[in-house]
Amino acid sequence: MTIALQERLDAQITFAMEIDKLKRIIRRNTLIDGSRRENDAEHSWHLGMMAMVMAEHAPPGTDLDKVVAMLLVHDIVEIDAGDTYIYDTVAVEGQAALEQAAADRIFGMLPEDQCRRMRALWDEFEERRTSEARFAKALDRLAPILANHHNEGGSWALNKVTARQVLEKVQIITEGSPALGEFAARLIESSVANGHLAP
Amino acid sequence: MTIALQERLDAQITFAMEIDKLKRIIRRNTLIDGSRRENDAEHSWHLGMMAMVMAEHAPPGTDLDKVVAMLLVHDIVEIDAGDTYIYDTVAVEGQAALEQAAADRIFGMLPEDQCRRMRALWDEFEERRTSEARFAKALDRLAPILANHHNEGGSWALNKVTARQVLEKVQIITEGSPALGEFAARLIESSVANGHLAP
Repeated sequence: MTIALQERLDAQITFAMEIDKLKRIIRRNTLIDGSRRENDAEHSWHLGMMAMVMAEHAPPGTDLDKVVAMLLVHDIVEIDAGDTYIYDTVAVEGQAALEQAAADRIFGMLPEDQCRRMRALWDEFEERRTSEARFAKALDRLAPILANHHNEGGSWALNKVTARQVLEKVQIITEGSPALGEFAARLIESSVANGHLAP
Repeated sequence: MTIALQERLDAQITFAMEIDKLKRIIRRNTLIDGSRRENDAEHSWHLGMMAMVMAEHAPPGTDLDKVVAMLLVHDIVEIDAGDTYIYDTVAVEGQAALEQAAADRIFGMLPEDQCRRMRALWDEFEERRTSEARFAKALDRLAPILANHHNEGGSWALNKVTARQVLEKVQIITEGSPALGEFAARLIESSVANGHLAP
């Protein structure tokens, strides 16, 4: 192995060990079976798998491999910035600066070309301007709705979230995938009808 | 949405909810910080990320997107078959039949074309005949070595594993990536030198 390659590998290993911390960042929502709250790493895996099997509900021409890559990367900044509950509007406001600093620090552990690539993937996800980013974000919004619908309201009930608030998030799902948006809206209706989500 | 598309989506959602169970399949090794044992879902995410950043250590022409897809899928059969410790040779023997049945049941929840695709990915990983499968398996073998090396022997010490046994696994890493094999061998030497792994 050349010294240059060895240096790159050392940086990649350091990065790999650092991002292990994502397994300890706990989200508000639980596993589908309600047994415990979910961490960011397993959540990211789940979204990657959902993208693989639901790809046909993305707009034609969407680059699925890029969607998967984006989903694996999308929460890494939360190692420093923490998970922010999307219905906590005050926390969401302060989050952007924290996440930018986290991206600088964490992606900055990689060789420069890879740091740029990771940052670009994450920026693209956050900006939600490409069909890949919109589809990725749609899945990120859909997953907790699935879990809460299955868990008699789950984190919605605990955090006093209403159907009106959840339906605002459905708009983001619809922008990434009309079919998934339609599906999410039905789950929310059903949760309201079952008394698991306040109207 | 057409009825056919709706039926496909329903099957995909059922599959997505089923594979959530991978978050409860616990492996022998711990997180890098040693705080708790790792689950299969977060492990699969970690390997996907490692593939993304270590791609350059795979043989030229390796299809990285396929490696990532394979790694996300590779442990799903353990939802039914459970995690088998690679140094438990008796358990490893009975595992293949259980995993085949698990693949039939779990991938069988998907629309047929997708079931075939998932099964093909998993078969390719298990057979380790393509450079994608060999690189994916190399990362799967490298990850616990990283964690154990960092944790004063971690699951090796607990399970009375010796350097000779670990070095047999390094052969599999080298077949997927000579650079990663060389790196793993150095970690093992260092663990032996530190008294964290029996020679």
